[in-house]
Amino acid sequence: MGHSIGQGSFKRRGLMLILSSPSGAGKTSIAREILNRDPNLVMSISATTRSKRPSEVDGKDYYFIDKMDFEAKINNNSFIEYARVFDNYYGTPKEPVEKAILSGKDMLFDIDWQGTQQLVSKQNIGQDIVTIFILPPNISELGRRLKNREQDSLSVVEYRMSKVSDELSHYPEYQYVIVNNEIIDSVVQVEKILSAERCKIERQIGLHDFVQNLRGLS
Amino acid sequence: MGHSIGQGSFKRRGLMLILSSPSGAGKTSIAREILNRDPNLVMSISATTRSKRPSEVDGKDYYFIDKMDFEAKINNNSFIEYARVFDNYYGTPKEPVEKAILSGKDMLFDIDWQGTQQLVSKQNIGQDIVTIFILPPNISELGRRLKNREQDSLSVVEYRMSKVSDELSHYPEYQYVIVNNEIIDSVVQVEKILSAERCKIERQIGLHDFVQNLRGLS
Repeated sequence: MGHSIGQGSFKRRGLMLILSSPSGAGKTSIAREILNRDPNLVMSISATTRSKRPSEVDGKDYYFIDKMDFEAKINNNSFIEYARVFDNYYGTPKEPVEKAILSGKDMLFDIDWQGTQQLVSKQNIGQDIVTIFILPPNISELGRRLKNREQDSLSVVEYRMSKVSDELSHYPEYQYVIVNNEIIDSVVQVEKILSAERCKIERQIGLHDFVQNLRGLS
Repeated sequence: MGHSIGQGSFKRRGLMLILSSPSGAGKTSIAREILNRDPNLVMSISATTRSKRPSEVDGKDYYFIDKMDFEAKINNNSFIEYARVFDNYYGTPKEPVEKAILSGKDMLFDIDWQGTQQLVSKQNIGQDIVTIFILPPNISELGRRLKNREQDSLSVVEYRMSKVSDELSHYPEYQYVIVNNEIIDSVVQVEKILSAERCKIERQIGLHDFVQNLRGLS
């Protein structure tokens, strides 16, 4: 766990890095690049009962499970948070997150302000959460990016644009805000935040023993 | 204030960056290098009533003022904090710090745990403070560095070594901890913390107007 996690060679507690933004602000590109560059960061994969789309891969985009299985997991307290959207469930499995944090790995969450509110409100995980809100540099750039997504129909684009103002209004609920002028600058800025957060005293759980040793007390 | 302060081109509130460490852990070298590299960071200069040493420069190492002047400034509430050590006063002038913070400049404080406790305990400045504790990689390296300082006598070295254990015990009072294996790595790590802290929502005081504009409400 030495070099990539910062300065010490001692044990560290992992963190939950939440990236949110209005649709089209570039969050998904930023997330993908950070995951490529940082072997200590893994993506949190949600479970859902909705049907898999042709382009999606089970266990990569989502864990696709049926309703009975999902409800059994709800009863087993297997989700950190879950929500029902129309006829489908979406949820964050608890076990992979706990495993990652205890082993000093960090988990990336690509979720909206509603999911963030749910995670932040959970007891016992608040201190593990780092939240970043990505802003578009201007509104015309946002519209351009949404329209360039060929997979979305015009009605979806219009619906998203109408939601942008509401999504933007939630920026004060985040710890950090980045304006996404250039993807690479934003990637570097997220990496700096991650690197700083890894130096936080409450995450460096091996520090006590390290300092006791320096003091000749261990 | 654009590029160096992070992502946005909007107004930012400055911060107070406190670096502490046991003697010999390399803090002063780190501070000097960061000041060289970052034009947005300025050193806080203390005032003192003690005599100027031949190597010191008034207005650079300290503001050297007499006792009557110092006590008048205490009565005028001109210090953020001050202390009396034996027959001499030491204090942090308030005006340069307030000016820096309001203009989006950051101030670096090279102070010990006692000075840090005093600053952190002040009302109305707590949210502006970022605290970093620098640890030596091991105790023998610390002893070597202290002995290599030719300006100090052996008795001073021994006194400092005896204080190290007490100084180390205060690391949990800081927000971030860095182990100073290599000066340049520590400099980069402090810069990352600084860059992250500049993205904190409470420091980006121009964000509200920026987002209102994005939402078409300004």
